[in-house]
Amino acid sequence: MAHRIAVIAGDGIGTEVMPEGIRALEVAAKRFKIDLAFTTFEFGSCDYYLEHGKMLPDDWFDQLKDFDALFYGAVGWPDKVPDHISLWGSLLQFRRQFDQYINLRPCKLMPGIKSPLAGREPGDIDFYVVRENTEGEYSSVGGKMFEGTEREIVLQETVMSRVGVDRVLKYAFDLAQTRPRKKLTSATKSNGISITMPYWDERVAEMAKHYPEIAVDKFHIDILTANFVLHPDWFDVVVGSNLFGDILSDLGPACTGTIGIAPSANINPEGKFPSLFEPVHGSAPDIAGKGIANPIGQIWSGAMMLEHLGYKEAADAMVTAIEEVLSEGSRQVLTRDVGGQGSTVSLGQAIAERI
Amino acid sequence: MAHRIAVIAGDGIGTEVMPEGIRALEVAAKRFKIDLAFTTFEFGSCDYYLEHGKMLPDDWFDQLKDFDALFYGAVGWPDKVPDHISLWGSLLQFRRQFDQYINLRPCKLMPGIKSPLAGREPGDIDFYVVRENTEGEYSSVGGKMFEGTEREIVLQETVMSRVGVDRVLKYAFDLAQTRPRKKLTSATKSNGISITMPYWDERVAEMAKHYPEIAVDKFHIDILTANFVLHPDWFDVVVGSNLFGDILSDLGPACTGTIGIAPSANINPEGKFPSLFEPVHGSAPDIAGKGIANPIGQIWSGAMMLEHLGYKEAADAMVTAIEEVLSEGSRQVLTRDVGGQGSTVSLGQAIAERI
Ligand SMILES: CC(C)[C@H](C(=O)O)[C@@H](O)C(=O)O
Ligand SMILES: CC(C)[C@H](C(=O)O)[C@@H](O)C(=O)O
Repeated sequence: MAHRIAVIAGDGIGTEVMPEGIRALEVAAKRFKIDLAFTTFEFGSCDYYLEHGKMLPDDWFDQLKDFDALFYGAVGWPDKVPDHISLWGSLLQFRRQFDQYINLRPCKLMPGIKSPLAGREPGDIDFYVVRENTEGEYSSVGGKMFEGTEREIVLQETVMSRVGVDRVLKYAFDLAQTRPRKKLTSATKSNGISITMPYWDERVAEMAKHYPEIAVDKFHIDILTANFVLHPDWFDVVVGSNLFGDILSDLGPACTGTIGIAPSANINPEGKFPSLFEPVHGSAPDIAGKGIANPIGQIWSGAMMLEHLGYKEAADAMVTAIEEVLSEGSRQVLTRDVGGQGSTVSLGQAIAERI
Repeated sequence: MAHRIAVIAGDGIGTEVMPEGIRALEVAAKRFKIDLAFTTFEFGSCDYYLEHGKMLPDDWFDQLKDFDALFYGAVGWPDKVPDHISLWGSLLQFRRQFDQYINLRPCKLMPGIKSPLAGREPGDIDFYVVRENTEGEYSSVGGKMFEGTEREIVLQETVMSRVGVDRVLKYAFDLAQTRPRKKLTSATKSNGISITMPYWDERVAEMAKHYPEIAVDKFHIDILTANFVLHPDWFDVVVGSNLFGDILSDLGPACTGTIGIAPSANINPEGKFPSLFEPVHGSAPDIAGKGIANPIGQIWSGAMMLEHLGYKEAADAMVTAIEEVLSEGSRQVLTRDVGGQGSTVSLGQAIAERI
C-alpha cells in the first residue's frame, strides 16, 4: 500500500526547495522499497490568496485529511499578503485542525557547518526542542476597545488547557526516555507571567512524578535563551509553550549554525490526522527566484517524515547523506549560505546521489 | 542639595554586591563633588516576607516616593518564597506603581570578557535593548476554570494600550536619534500572535513617521533571537514588549559574555517617580554567602544611576574604571566568573580605587 503524501510548496523559495525534497525522498524510497505517492496542491500560497481571496479552499480539510503526511515548503510573502493572514490562513490552520500538537525540531551541530559559537565541535550539541503547537500564546481570542483614540486598548488571551499542556509534556518526557541522557528542561516564565506560567510549572511537576528516571529542570525563558548560547551542551530535550517553543526552536538551530537547513515536524502523535513536515526557514522573498536556496531543510524534513512513517533506516540514510555532502564541502555543490557557489539543484542532486 | 538614594539590597548575592556598588558610588561622588545620601531599607527581601507575610510594608509607596532614585540589588529565593510572589510583591510593584515604563539595558562587548560568539571583538557589539516595563504580557488579568479537573483551562490576558506602547516607542526612537547609527529594530511576532502584535507593528509604523532620519526595521522574535547570535553587529537600539524585551535583554548580554555583570535601569522618564537601577543578574542562591559574586553589575548600575541624575562624566569614569580593571585581568582581583580567584570585595575595591 502506497503512503499518500500531500505536497504543498507554498511561497518563495518553498517552490524551489520542494523539488529537491521530493527527489531525495524518491531515491530513498526506491533504495528502501518504500511506496510513496505524491499529490501536489496549489493552495496554501500567497498567489492562491491573491486569486481566490483566501489561502485555502473551503474543503481543504476533506481534501487533505486522508493523506498519510503533508510535505510542506514555506508560506508567506508580506508584500503580497500580511503575514498574520497568510499564516493563520494556512500553516496555523493545519496545525490546529489536524491537531498537530507537537512541533519537533532537532538542534544538532553538523559536520562542515560553522557554528557561531566559539569552540564547539560536532557532538557537543545535540538536543530536541518540543513545542506545544496548538494553543498558548497563539490564540485568536481578544480584540480592541476605544479603537483609534488615545484610550485604545488591545487584549489577547493566552489559553492553556490541562489536556493541551499535559499531552505535549507527555510527548516530551517520552522522548527524553528514549535518549541516553534522559534529561528534560522546561521553559517557563512563572516569575513574570504569573497565571499561565505557574500553571505550566505545576503540570511539569505533576508529570515528572510518572517519570522518576528523567532528570527534570526548568529555566525562565530569558535566562534559558542565554543558556542556549552559553551552555548548549546542557540540553537534551527542551519543552516549551507555543511561543517559547517557537523562539527556542529558531535560537537552537541558530546556535548550531543550521537555521537555514534545520527541519521540523508538526505531529499528531495518535495518527488520527496527517502530520506535517517542513523546513524551519521561511519563504525568503529576498532570495526567491535565484535558484540559490539551500534545499537541506526540505530534504531533512523529508527524512523526519520517513521516520514518522516507520522507516527509521531510510531516514538515517538521508541524514547521513546530508552529513557526508556537507563534510566533503565541495564548493561546486554547496549553496552560498554554506560557503559554496552551487545552486539549489546541484546540492539537491549531490545528496540524492549519495542516498 | 543631596540626591536621596533608597537602597534595597534584597536577597542572596544582592546583599553582597550592594556594599561594593555603594563604595564605588561614594568614591565617584567624592571625586566629582556629587552629594549622595543613601538610606537603607530592609524590606523587599524574602526574609522580610517570612517575617511579615508580605514583601513590602503597606506604606512602602509613601516611604519611597520622594527619593531621587532606588538602588536595588536582587530579589528572589525560590526555596523560601515562590518567585511569582516575591517578584510581584516587590520589583514588579516598583516598576508599575512608580511607572518605570522603560527598562534599559546596554549590550556591549567589554575588554577582557570572553564572548561566547566566535570571532567578535570589543567594538563589534554595542547596542541597547529598550523594554516596555509595565504592561503587555506581564498582566495580572486572568484566571482558571474547571480547576482540578480534566477540563481545566487557564487564561491570561496580554494588555497593550496606545499610551503604553507609544511612550516606550518614543523613548526608543529618541534614544536612536542620539546614536551615530540612528537605527531602530522592533521585536514583533505579528505572524503568530495575531491581535496584540500587529497592533504593536502599527504603532511602530505610525511613530516612525515622526522620525524620518531613523532607519527602522522589525523582526519576529524567533528569528530576532537567532540574529542576536548570528549578526549582533546589526543592532543599535532594539525595542520590544515587556516579554520580548525581557528575553532580548538577557540574551543580548549573554552574547557579549556580560550576563553576570550587565546593568539595567527602570526609568520613569518624566521624573515624577524615582527610577530604579539594578544589575541584570538575579539573587543566585547557589553562590550566595560565599563572597564570590561579581559586583560589576551593581557598580555599572550605579553608573547608569549617576547618568540618570545628570552626571554623565562621573558615570563614564565608573564605566572606564570597570573596563580598565577588566583589561588588566589580575587573577588576584577578578572573581571566578571572569577567570580570577578574587572575591566580591577585592574586585569592588579595585574598581573603587581606579575611579
Ligand atoms: C525577575 C523577573 C520578574 C524579571 C522580569 O522578567 O522582568 C527579570 O527577569 C528582569 O528582567 O528584571
Ligand atoms: C510563520 C510562523 C507563524 C511560525 C510560527 O511562529 O509558528 C514559524 O515561525 C514557525 O516556527 O513555524
